[in-house]
Amino acid sequence: MLEKTNSQADIAELMADIGRRATAAARPLAIAGPDQKNAALEAMAIAIDAERQTILDANQIDVEAALASGMAASFVDRLKLDDARIDGIIAGMQAIAALADPVGDVIAAWDRPNGLKIERVRTPLGVIGVIYESRPNVTADAGALCLKSGNAVILRGGSDSFHSSRAIHACLVKGLEQAGLPGDAIQMIPVSDRAAVGELLTGLGGAVDVIVPRGGKSLVARVQSDARVPVFAHLEGLCHIYVDASADAAMARAIVVNAKMRRTGICGSAETLLIDRSLDLDTAKSLLTDLLGAGCEIRGDEDVCALVPEAKPAAEEDWRTEYLDAIISARFVDGIDGAITHIATYSSNHTEAVIAEDSRVVERFFNEVDSAILLHNASTQFADGGEFGMGAEIGIATGKMHARGPVGVEQLTSFKYRVRGTGQTRP
Amino acid sequence: MLEKTNSQADIAELMADIGRRATAAARPLAIAGPDQKNAALEAMAIAIDAERQTILDANQIDVEAALASGMAASFVDRLKLDDARIDGIIAGMQAIAALADPVGDVIAAWDRPNGLKIERVRTPLGVIGVIYESRPNVTADAGALCLKSGNAVILRGGSDSFHSSRAIHACLVKGLEQAGLPGDAIQMIPVSDRAAVGELLTGLGGAVDVIVPRGGKSLVARVQSDARVPVFAHLEGLCHIYVDASADAAMARAIVVNAKMRRTGICGSAETLLIDRSLDLDTAKSLLTDLLGAGCEIRGDEDVCALVPEAKPAAEEDWRTEYLDAIISARFVDGIDGAITHIATYSSNHTEAVIAEDSRVVERFFNEVDSAILLHNASTQFADGGEFGMGAEIGIATGKMHARGPVGVEQLTSFKYRVRGTGQTRP
Repeated sequence: MLEKTNSQADIAELMADIGRRATAAARPLAIAGPDQKNAALEAMAIAIDAERQTILDANQIDVEAALASGMAASFVDRLKLDDARIDGIIAGMQAIAALADPVGDVIAAWDRPNGLKIERVRTPLGVIGVIYESRPNVTADAGALCLKSGNAVILRGGSDSFHSSRAIHACLVKGLEQAGLPGDAIQMIPVSDRAAVGELLTGLGGAVDVIVPRGGKSLVARVQSDARVPVFAHLEGLCHIYVDASADAAMARAIVVNAKMRRTGICGSAETLLIDRSLDLDTAKSLLTDLLGAGCEIRGDEDVCALVPEAKPAAEEDWRTEYLDAIISARFVDGIDGAITHIATYSSNHTEAVIAEDSRVVERFFNEVDSAILLHNASTQFADGGEFGMGAEIGIATGKMHARGPVGVEQLTSFKYRVRGTGQTRP
Repeated sequence: MLEKTNSQADIAELMADIGRRATAAARPLAIAGPDQKNAALEAMAIAIDAERQTILDANQIDVEAALASGMAASFVDRLKLDDARIDGIIAGMQAIAALADPVGDVIAAWDRPNGLKIERVRTPLGVIGVIYESRPNVTADAGALCLKSGNAVILRGGSDSFHSSRAIHACLVKGLEQAGLPGDAIQMIPVSDRAAVGELLTGLGGAVDVIVPRGGKSLVARVQSDARVPVFAHLEGLCHIYVDASADAAMARAIVVNAKMRRTGICGSAETLLIDRSLDLDTAKSLLTDLLGAGCEIRGDEDVCALVPEAKPAAEEDWRTEYLDAIISARFVDGIDGAITHIATYSSNHTEAVIAEDSRVVERFFNEVDSAILLHNASTQFADGGEFGMGAEIGIATGKMHARGPVGVEQLTSFKYRVRGTGQTRP
């Protein structure tokens, strides 16, 4: 690993070279068949298994450095690898190998009156830049997803997990080369200088087609503001759950607790509960007491606080907060109109759920709420590529362009048109 | 029209207000049904017909100003409206009304083992910014396409066509209001200050979802470098046509002349002819002499110049030039490999054609050339949304993200997931 003292010029030249090598690798990768890509994935899994101890030793260096610099326990936990987590990485590789290959899929096909036969087919995007933080397993997941979708990738992991990621990366390159694919198809930026990220965000002279940031709000915000190429950004999962007066009470109670409390730290966890003012009061109260009983703090409007004295009064800021914790904001709204208005005002457009038996309410929610994922009578915690049947995901996109919602191998592709003629000229 | 002396602060406030009004208009527009949107389009067509003289008078002001400032005849021609062109605008409106409504289309649907039913459905993008040059008819086309796809739009036409565009825009607003839709759904920036474009490119505080530049290279390049939101850019149509040794000679001759000479000024016209070195020499010569006979200048490599003395020697720059004129660069290549390599080196990835009877050559061309549109045995001049059966297009995108190739109403949409459950919670 080079020192932090690299000059800006060194970094620029290093990154330009990485970009050139990625571009060169992208072409053979784009035309590689499913068998060759899957052979590489299998070889990567075998290499990771074989190099298990090397990876654990490298991870030990990162963990000790994190402990020495007094990182939080939660941070160290995300960083730490053990045999179970390495088994998870290997299983992930095999699961991605088992996915259908999206490249070459015919998305649409039609004929023209003049006899031209038009097909829209999936193609790789080209070169993807992935910027992530301390989880070393992202090195393997991102590398494998980009390979499966026929893209070259430039990985930039957090400096805290540098040794772990480098050891994993070595196994990925071994797998590529054993399958006869260019090792440059999965490159890892070998320096920790922040300037390297700045260069990557410029697109390296047209080499980078899209940037995928995986990490906290500040990382994603910086990438969004500085990137000169398209970004698949996942900004926030400020998810709402609306319980309509027509809801099945028992179903609503089960879903609300699950949506908030199953796992509070994931982007699909509910952060705000919207209760129809016309909902039976006992049911409304039980929704709140169930949450309290499950160990959830409630920050409510006046009516919520009047109904359950344990609730704390919500401030305006609470409606804008993704807690990622055992806390929920809760308020009464005037039916579906009130719910739609609140969500339009405060949502991050990630995932929202409606609990209702009245189909007109459901259709209005589905038509008028503009979020990536809308659920009826189901938990917001299903907002996940695996749960959608897409296999592994590289993230969940909250933008509207190209990829929205879970970003799996299909979302990592572009498309082109193939037109077959028999000598047609245009009149 | 305000004066050019607007302060930066005036412009910023004006544009922020336009952004707020566009956002407010986008929501009712997104949920408007096909009938209401089509009623607006019909009312717009009627208003344009009724205000025909007002539009022609306004256009006269723009034309006289252009003549007075000594603009080129071709520029004045693009600017000038007459009854035939207004009839074309009206016909375009009616054609867009007749298109299928993309909003709400179910693109994909599948069920999960746990009983969740997942649908991916088309939704509007939200607010689209369209920046164009002197053709006043773009005001009507862009407004109608954005309305049909459920998007609010902010139009920024060239100052040279300001009066013409404003007269047309007034008819669009009348049509919206007659159909009960917000007039702010189609706004036109009322000042000519360049600073207004700068504000638009920042996204107006998140109000703008995508920018569509329609115009020359310098306009598009500026938009691409300054925009802080996604851009559907159409940079260049440097289209290639490769004639393989297996080509049908008569078909190749007809297609090559059509691809270059039918209209030389459109993005789908061929700019470079690649001839297989193994092609029968008489056929090769006839391809070139046909072009000369049709009034096309040829800039060729040594072998081309040796074959037809009328050809001028090509410089390196010629392989990178989109002539948009009766000029073509031509060279011999070593079969499909040489063609793929040349295209990978010089193409703008817009449209390429292969003329061949050998299906292995065609499949390699289709698989290995990464351009938006690939044609087999057909003219590159079919690179057009109308010819693709998409109806009107707002442009042809040369990027790889979201929209690629012709950008019609479908490409002006995003999507969301609708998930229908029966009480599912995540284990």
